[in-house]
Amino acid sequence: MNQIKRVAIVGGTHGNELTGVYLVKKFDRAPELIGRSTFETITMLANPQACKIGRRYIDIDLNRCFRQQDLENPHLSSYEAQRAKEIYHIFSSQNTDRQTLIVDLHSTTSNMGLTFILASQHPFNLQLAAYLTSVYPHMKLLASPSNHQDSPLLRSISELGGTLEVGAVPQGVLDASLFQQTEQVIATILDCTEAYNLGTMPVVNNSLTIYQSIRAIDYPRNNSGEIQAMIHPQLQSRDYQALNPGDPMFLTFEGESVLYEGKSTVYPIFINEAAYYEKGIAMCFTEKEIVLHSS
Amino acid sequence: MNQIKRVAIVGGTHGNELTGVYLVKKFDRAPELIGRSTFETITMLANPQACKIGRRYIDIDLNRCFRQQDLENPHLSSYEAQRAKEIYHIFSSQNTDRQTLIVDLHSTTSNMGLTFILASQHPFNLQLAAYLTSVYPHMKLLASPSNHQDSPLLRSISELGGTLEVGAVPQGVLDASLFQQTEQVIATILDCTEAYNLGTMPVVNNSLTIYQSIRAIDYPRNNSGEIQAMIHPQLQSRDYQALNPGDPMFLTFEGESVLYEGKSTVYPIFINEAAYYEKGIAMCFTEKEIVLHSS
Repeated sequence: MNQIKRVAIVGGTHGNELTGVYLVKKFDRAPELIGRSTFETITMLANPQACKIGRRYIDIDLNRCFRQQDLENPHLSSYEAQRAKEIYHIFSSQNTDRQTLIVDLHSTTSNMGLTFILASQHPFNLQLAAYLTSVYPHMKLLASPSNHQDSPLLRSISELGGTLEVGAVPQGVLDASLFQQTEQVIATILDCTEAYNLGTMPVVNNSLTIYQSIRAIDYPRNNSGEIQAMIHPQLQSRDYQALNPGDPMFLTFEGESVLYEGKSTVYPIFINEAAYYEKGIAMCFTEKEIVLHSS
Repeated sequence: MNQIKRVAIVGGTHGNELTGVYLVKKFDRAPELIGRSTFETITMLANPQACKIGRRYIDIDLNRCFRQQDLENPHLSSYEAQRAKEIYHIFSSQNTDRQTLIVDLHSTTSNMGLTFILASQHPFNLQLAAYLTSVYPHMKLLASPSNHQDSPLLRSISELGGTLEVGAVPQGVLDASLFQQTEQVIATILDCTEAYNLGTMPVVNNSLTIYQSIRAIDYPRNNSGEIQAMIHPQLQSRDYQALNPGDPMFLTFEGESVLYEGKSTVYPIFINEAAYYEKGIAMCFTEKEIVLHSS
């Protein structure tokens, strides 16, 4: 199989998610931390203007700008649309030998702990995920069904790698413990990639639990679009835990519970993510899937 | 003593502190919840433009616009400077019979639980604080030394009342439990004011623990002003707990602990408040003071 020749550590795709921003700055001061012998490691602050003012974005969400049709559309002129094109040209390559493994660093106000969101189910990603969860047993694995060309996410530039999503941490806040955990996971990813290139990848359990995104759930809203309820206290912070039919999901401002009326058990994530209020997302439902892979 | 004739419940002084914003909207839908027989209750969304876009402010922090000299300065033209003048004219009055008791609703990313920040040590405020802490034993009381005319805060318009500060909750997020707790405290404040006017104020313990702000502490920074350290994991979320000489305060990005080198025990609050990074505040030190009052 082809060796991996380049790894990109990306921070600040959202300018108010400080873990990634300050990790990239740290690695730029001390590049020896991320250097390995068999590949090149580069860093990138994806949305430097948004980082400067500490906001998620300037004009539009950069992490929704990477659809193939948008990257090819010369009429899109927002700061982020242009920045997406720049980033795409840096990372994309027709030469698969030079395909970049991307690790995009994010944080969330949801209680998602350490989550690795796989860019694809490429065999390398599955091996990497298996190794990561053997080292970090509390780490969760997440996948979404969309294919690459339709995906608006930065990580979709490459099928190798994915997003590290850590939380709960408020926007605009550095949490030292999550900062250190994220740094450790990055080191493990780099070591794992090195081992892969050297043919010394450790053999680990070949059964993986991957949460598959199935759909986003909005808040109850009135006719003007205003939200009418909050995440229920019994659901708050319970990301990745089973939500069963009849369990409370929301609490109206008047104090009434709104129950989950689906027929099957789901595992909600991104519960009460601050940035998703404007996107009409109160949480995302996932299903648990056992994936076998060959190592 | 003069009766209190008007109570103002203010939300959205910061547009991304949603608890107050949505409580004010709720009270506007159901004014009977805040009506009492001996005084008028009004509500206000202090910074409606910032609420609309879910940011702390548009041009400048509204809660730093209430210095007497700024309110009298016709040359200040930012949105918030103008809004402060409007609010001041609504609430201020030379006629002390009509002095408004202000309850300004805030939230914080710091783990400050339920905190009542007294606008002044007016005898009514001390009675109110004593009653509140008898009903809510986990509530903390906070005072700052500044006098009214120098204070830039909205609550400084009146010496009656103060700020309800609740956390930890991220900016842009509704926490249902804190929402309900804040609503309960507001009801208790209204009941207490009613009892005061009727001369039926309950007698409670006359010894109060009030945390007095003594100074703000910045993050360690380099010559360019960039922060070089994070709140130490051992201090994170420990608002109101004793910080003793030699205890860790910060952790540099390189992993070194920075210790508290003061000579006396202090009680830090606003630890890792998101909005204070730009203000150069990592936390505020307080001292614990026992205040006696006559009820």
